[in-house]
Amino acid sequence: MKTQPLILRKDQERRLLAGHCWIYSNEVDTQATPLKNLEPGQPVEILSDHERWIGHGYVNPHSLICARIVTRDRNHPLSPTLWLKRIHDALALRERLYKRPFYRLVFGESDGLPGLIVDRYDDLLAVQITTAGMERVRGEILAALEQVLRPRAIVLRNDTAVRELEGLPRSVETVLGTPEDHLTLIEHELAFEVSPLSGQKTGWFFDQAENRTRLARYGVGKRVLDVCSYIGAWGLRAAALGAEEVTCVDSSHTALERVADNAARNRLDNRVNHLHGDAFEVLRDLRDKGKRFDTVILDPPAFIKRRKDEKEGTQAYQRLNRLGIEVLEPGGLLVTSSCSFHMDRDTFLRSVQLAARRSGRNLQLLEVGQQGPDHPVHPAISETAYLKTCFLRVLPEF
Amino acid sequence: MKTQPLILRKDQERRLLAGHCWIYSNEVDTQATPLKNLEPGQPVEILSDHERWIGHGYVNPHSLICARIVTRDRNHPLSPTLWLKRIHDALALRERLYKRPFYRLVFGESDGLPGLIVDRYDDLLAVQITTAGMERVRGEILAALEQVLRPRAIVLRNDTAVRELEGLPRSVETVLGTPEDHLTLIEHELAFEVSPLSGQKTGWFFDQAENRTRLARYGVGKRVLDVCSYIGAWGLRAAALGAEEVTCVDSSHTALERVADNAARNRLDNRVNHLHGDAFEVLRDLRDKGKRFDTVILDPPAFIKRRKDEKEGTQAYQRLNRLGIEVLEPGGLLVTSSCSFHMDRDTFLRSVQLAARRSGRNLQLLEVGQQGPDHPVHPAISETAYLKTCFLRVLPEF
Repeated sequence: MKTQPLILRKDQERRLLAGHCWIYSNEVDTQATPLKNLEPGQPVEILSDHERWIGHGYVNPHSLICARIVTRDRNHPLSPTLWLKRIHDALALRERLYKRPFYRLVFGESDGLPGLIVDRYDDLLAVQITTAGMERVRGEILAALEQVLRPRAIVLRNDTAVRELEGLPRSVETVLGTPEDHLTLIEHELAFEVSPLSGQKTGWFFDQAENRTRLARYGVGKRVLDVCSYIGAWGLRAAALGAEEVTCVDSSHTALERVADNAARNRLDNRVNHLHGDAFEVLRDLRDKGKRFDTVILDPPAFIKRRKDEKEGTQAYQRLNRLGIEVLEPGGLLVTSSCSFHMDRDTFLRSVQLAARRSGRNLQLLEVGQQGPDHPVHPAISETAYLKTCFLRVLPEF
Repeated sequence: MKTQPLILRKDQERRLLAGHCWIYSNEVDTQATPLKNLEPGQPVEILSDHERWIGHGYVNPHSLICARIVTRDRNHPLSPTLWLKRIHDALALRERLYKRPFYRLVFGESDGLPGLIVDRYDDLLAVQITTAGMERVRGEILAALEQVLRPRAIVLRNDTAVRELEGLPRSVETVLGTPEDHLTLIEHELAFEVSPLSGQKTGWFFDQAENRTRLARYGVGKRVLDVCSYIGAWGLRAAALGAEEVTCVDSSHTALERVADNAARNRLDNRVNHLHGDAFEVLRDLRDKGKRFDTVILDPPAFIKRRKDEKEGTQAYQRLNRLGIEVLEPGGLLVTSSCSFHMDRDTFLRSVQLAARRSGRNLQLLEVGQQGPDHPVHPAISETAYLKTCFLRVLPEF
């Protein structure tokens, strides 16, 4: 497919020159370069209205984000050579940071590969392609991954809703090997059984690994509550750190069965129990029964998925955090997360603080963790920073 | 001194009810409660215009921040009992988090003790009193510290400029024991000689201890540059982590002598050297000579001390970071800090990103550290969050 120019309207290049890589359809000079002449995924050379060079990228005339810059180096257009370079760079970072081969290997824009996510489970790669531009070069990308990583199996977890924004169908496909849907992942000496073909996302939340490790720094005490536990990553970590009684709460029976299996696998089953139900209802019930914990971990799914959910979602975070605070012992540790990109760090912290004031408690913020370094943030693309995990000490007024 | 009421003007309580503890003079109903009838440091009961209870605090009619809330519990006014409770709570947090008795023990508002800073060097306490309210109860506070900590020596490092905002004189005093001005501090197995009576601040920057520890996570490579090194805390940490050639840069000969002493003390003197001079000039010189590093650490003093320095200070951060980026090897680690409260995290990151774009480099933000947990942030008081330390990988475009 031939590379076409894509010319911006006057003064639309500033954000791009500062490092962002998304171009919205209303920023394109459609007189000079009509979008209707371009095909989804077609490679483009992006130029300002003065024909100043900006970068190589790809286009999707049917998407609100109508083009993404892949490189600013004019001499290295989109090609297998570029993919190999980017994947090598991505791998070098993870090999520097991780002892074991379990991590997010490629995190889209932040790794210079917009539209591509790759999670590595040792010799199995779980790949998500989220844009038409990446879909077009899917063969080249898979070849580059095979060349660099030599994986035994590659699974395409293209069942994510964001593909619909680009007019792409949703599916799960095996493109290399014959992967089983059960494998063992090691996170800091704990073993978990995960399902890369059928689990949530690609089966594991790598983004919280670093924050879970931080629990060691703060200590968890004897009794720990892990709310929205999924398959027990936080809860088991707390148990391994010495908690005597860990309660995992989730609304999925399947997830809680996996919690029990994973606890047994790590010989922590005498310390880990679980409660099935809606997080809010279970917390209310625990509070009313006078049950108290030394550490409460709140790691819910995004309450704000779209901008329009902002008000309702913010209230939900505040309610959940208030309940979490109310089942804490004095001086207890609250570990509270939001993975809603649409809620920034300060807004999240403000709702936790309001929750504390309504319960008459004082908070001390010890640290704010973000997604781990295998999900690097692109400093010019705020959309790449989504996870906030606050570690707080909760004190009574006196 | 008798406790007086302090009544707010209509609708001025909202920020306070959300948890902030500062009252500005223009928020007080001076008809109902004239400030001129109150003495600096006098205890007050703060009430809304509807006489809704807000908290116990203290006042300073001569300061822009004319009152600070100390507690919202009506039954526990300012008294030795309250100081003891607060100091016990503060100590409990640090004892939970630190193996060794070297840390900030009390961090003002965040520990419910506005106007009080205490740094602990084992059995020596370095105390700063920054408000008239705390100055008035100085005897009670020192007695409470003695009762809880049983220190050998207490030094008042009241030579900080912020005291002038409260009309307080500046001085350094010994109020207990006969402290020497040289003591050995241990930070994660490294020993440093520090001067609590004459060093910068109280002799040590405890606030970066946690971030220095984070270097281990990212790895420093062979050659490390530590810019604005002071007495070598970052540089020696890098050497201890295996760097073969660490260059400490500072404009103070005294600080660099101490770097050399501290390096020898830890048997790292074969790996640590130093360069005297202005940070900008030294960096320019290194860049022009083609010297390159695997890790560059930038930890300058606050370039933005007052709101009016914002523009010039932001440019200084950008210049310094550009120079830092330009002496990095491809794929190198940039550890860059700002302790300017007046520059928020996003603004700081934006100037680092612009510096990178101007050098044609791509950044990946791996983590943003803040001040360590012995300087907890009060979530309702943004003024208590000041330190940003960004860990970034710096890549060429291809």
